[in-house]
Amino acid sequence: MEAIPSASYSMTLRVEFPHRAGALGRILTTIGDAGGMVGAIDIVRMGQERSVRDITVNARDSEHGQRIVRAVDALPEVRVVNVSDRTFLLHLGGKIEVHSKIPIRTRDDLSMAYTPGVARVCRAIAQEPERAFNLTIKRNAVAVVTDGTAVLGLGDIGPYAAMPVMEGKAMLFKEFAGVDAFPICLDTRDPDEIVRTVSHLAPAFGGINLEDISAPRCFEIEERLKRELDIPVFHDDQHGTAVVVLAALINALKLVGKRMEGIKVVLSGVGAAGVACARILLAAGVRNIIGCDRHGIVYRGRGDADTSQGWFARHTNPENVRGTLSDAIRGADVFIGVSVPNVLTVEHIESMSRDPVVFAMANPDPEIRPELAYGHARIIATGRSDYPNQINNVLCFPGIFRGALDIRAREINEEMKLAAARAIAGVIPEESLSEDYIIPSVFDERVVPAVAGAVAEAGVESGVARRVRERAETDFSAASF
Amino acid sequence: MEAIPSASYSMTLRVEFPHRAGALGRILTTIGDAGGMVGAIDIVRMGQERSVRDITVNARDSEHGQRIVRAVDALPEVRVVNVSDRTFLLHLGGKIEVHSKIPIRTRDDLSMAYTPGVARVCRAIAQEPERAFNLTIKRNAVAVVTDGTAVLGLGDIGPYAAMPVMEGKAMLFKEFAGVDAFPICLDTRDPDEIVRTVSHLAPAFGGINLEDISAPRCFEIEERLKRELDIPVFHDDQHGTAVVVLAALINALKLVGKRMEGIKVVLSGVGAAGVACARILLAAGVRNIIGCDRHGIVYRGRGDADTSQGWFARHTNPENVRGTLSDAIRGADVFIGVSVPNVLTVEHIESMSRDPVVFAMANPDPEIRPELAYGHARIIATGRSDYPNQINNVLCFPGIFRGALDIRAREINEEMKLAAARAIAGVIPEESLSEDYIIPSVFDERVVPAVAGAVAEAGVESGVARRVRERAETDFSAASF
Repeated sequence: MEAIPSASYSMTLRVEFPHRAGALGRILTTIGDAGGMVGAIDIVRMGQERSVRDITVNARDSEHGQRIVRAVDALPEVRVVNVSDRTFLLHLGGKIEVHSKIPIRTRDDLSMAYTPGVARVCRAIAQEPERAFNLTIKRNAVAVVTDGTAVLGLGDIGPYAAMPVMEGKAMLFKEFAGVDAFPICLDTRDPDEIVRTVSHLAPAFGGINLEDISAPRCFEIEERLKRELDIPVFHDDQHGTAVVVLAALINALKLVGKRMEGIKVVLSGVGAAGVACARILLAAGVRNIIGCDRHGIVYRGRGDADTSQGWFARHTNPENVRGTLSDAIRGADVFIGVSVPNVLTVEHIESMSRDPVVFAMANPDPEIRPELAYGHARIIATGRSDYPNQINNVLCFPGIFRGALDIRAREINEEMKLAAARAIAGVIPEESLSEDYIIPSVFDERVVPAVAGAVAEAGVESGVARRVRERAETDFSAASF
Repeated sequence: MEAIPSASYSMTLRVEFPHRAGALGRILTTIGDAGGMVGAIDIVRMGQERSVRDITVNARDSEHGQRIVRAVDALPEVRVVNVSDRTFLLHLGGKIEVHSKIPIRTRDDLSMAYTPGVARVCRAIAQEPERAFNLTIKRNAVAVVTDGTAVLGLGDIGPYAAMPVMEGKAMLFKEFAGVDAFPICLDTRDPDEIVRTVSHLAPAFGGINLEDISAPRCFEIEERLKRELDIPVFHDDQHGTAVVVLAALINALKLVGKRMEGIKVVLSGVGAAGVACARILLAAGVRNIIGCDRHGIVYRGRGDADTSQGWFARHTNPENVRGTLSDAIRGADVFIGVSVPNVLTVEHIESMSRDPVVFAMANPDPEIRPELAYGHARIIATGRSDYPNQINNVLCFPGIFRGALDIRAREINEEMKLAAARAIAGVIPEESLSEDYIIPSVFDERVVPAVAGAVAEAGVESGVARRVRERAETDFSAASF
């Protein structure tokens, strides 16, 4: 499957060429012939005989980018002076920064924000630690924690190489939900050490977003941290994915006219995301889930009962069937793939029940190419932005943390996740739903407020909120002086 | 010693009173009579018979503030509707936030800053981890780490109550030196756990600023972290204080015409700051230092040789004298106090050598009240902003980290600290020096660039720099695409 040229492989070519009619056109034609997409063109220098321009080009991948550069450079009298990679340029020096909310320009500023005035604020918190939520960044701060063991599709690349993803996540937290997130990239893979480290640094934060930690360690780390801390701990790769899958499924079932209780779901991939999907689907009322991995169907009696797969086997596959994906998928209503490319075939889809729903979310290449599935499945969703129905965690994590922070939640529980999924689904009015539009865009501005509101409400109702009102500021007037 | 009303005890009184000539004047007179200093006066509401105004008042302390409020409220026909504490208001929701350097508004933004484009940047760092300095926030990020065991003059108030100080520090890092600092407030006091935690989270940072960790644990924690990490670890309470003390001493000696090699220094207080002062003074050439604590003079043979006091005893007090502060101070040229209020008397100063130099830095009340020392000591410095010659760490830590980050230093070594001290001292031209002006103001804009430049140079010369040039950006052009 050939990728579409995209901004993620965008480069700026600085090209010097004869200052003569048709010269620029020839360069642009060459780029187009090589498959590149031309964006902005800027003049750098216009000489008597030669001119220099910056031409921004989207390529499909690195190799393709280099081919385009070579093609331009091979033109007679044309010279590529420099190539800059826009994605790398954007990353120079990092993508986030820490700002002071107020300037420190005078002695008075200093004496209120720092010594000696700050001492009074410290004393107020020492008397009543919960005041940290009011008087420090805790009420709006989330730690984005990883050990770099399962980063994107790249695998175990370590904490340094994971940084750009965690910074990107922090950007999204801020841009989409106004949350102040900071990357904590841990130079250890030992679950004990990770749990201890995160527990130790929790005081400054109102929530912990675990990210890109490999299974099965991620289950244990999340469970232990949830027990130890009184702030939400949320492994986005598990629960963010699960929430958005459920949101998509809610809307898909409206279109095909089926109910959670009656459907048969086949889950390909029983890793972190797969187990979380199973959990939330069960909570949402689904009764018949069959999981498959590279060894075939997961059933009770296969492998270790103490692992997350053991849990999975005990809670899914009610008839305890055995076999392969082909056996599992026969008569299924929904296929959910969080596994590897190209495991699903047209024949598989043909063997499903009426109006097959296929969520093929392996990244970057899905379980089946959408082009192949069109005409066989009624509804197709992927994790990609270049097809309709993108199932993307960005729809979930900013809003779910916004809602949790707003009520100073002690945890993010199942009720809050279900509420988040329903809120995402509910953003699309029923009359607007279609096979190509079961899930809102990540840029749909209705999503975060809807999710945050629903999550806050569910948190209050389920008893994990430490405050209900939006504004408690007036508590700190005369009383604390 | 009665404090001066200050902004650190600033409150805004919302007062309702009869709308009649002289009524406001009477209120302001009452505030003045009660010792309050009136700042801004704003109109809130002007009715037919009564008006409401916000009056901002600086008080000496909380109790004094309440007395002022009661005095105003006791006036006939006057009612204090509300009192808000400006320092607390300024702290609501915390003092720092995380910003995204670029907006995420389009699919293209997302695909460069996050998936899929970010994967290429991750891969580049995985191949060569040092690239994290170029492509992540590491090159400008400092962790402000505390366990809350020795916060300001408040002592062991824990990690939650320490947060406002650490946030304040992060503000100062940003406002004075453009450094992105983030508070790491640790919910553990175990040195092993602190060392492990900080080591684990170091990848995202270019430096570690240890803060307000009690002695003697702070020595061990700093030493072990320095050995384990390849980024600077700097305990500001020790070294920041020591650097600024040395800066002040350099200029003081110019005024009194003495040399480091020939002076006798008495150090009152042999805790974290005292030991660090001794170290830097020795490095600067001072030969005769005598330390005192509550048990008297520190000498070889007193107490445990393995502790920091053991080190102190071995490296100071060359004639190994014993006795009290009164014995130590006889004939001394310089007194440096990092201890407790009121241990130094006029008689002590009278027994010193010609032109006594007294740095009385106990906070908030110095070792001797400057009013008492004037006329006896030739030069007096304190830690306070309401006397001349304030010895304040803010003069050191922003610039020293700025310089260290600029060269991607592996550590902040003695050479860099000495360079910082000389740079601070050098900001004041010799002809401008006077008894009241041996150290620049924290708001002197020449300080940070001077310190950063000198520290960077010293780091390069002493071989701890990972880069020399200011701009290495062009490395990421064609090569990495």
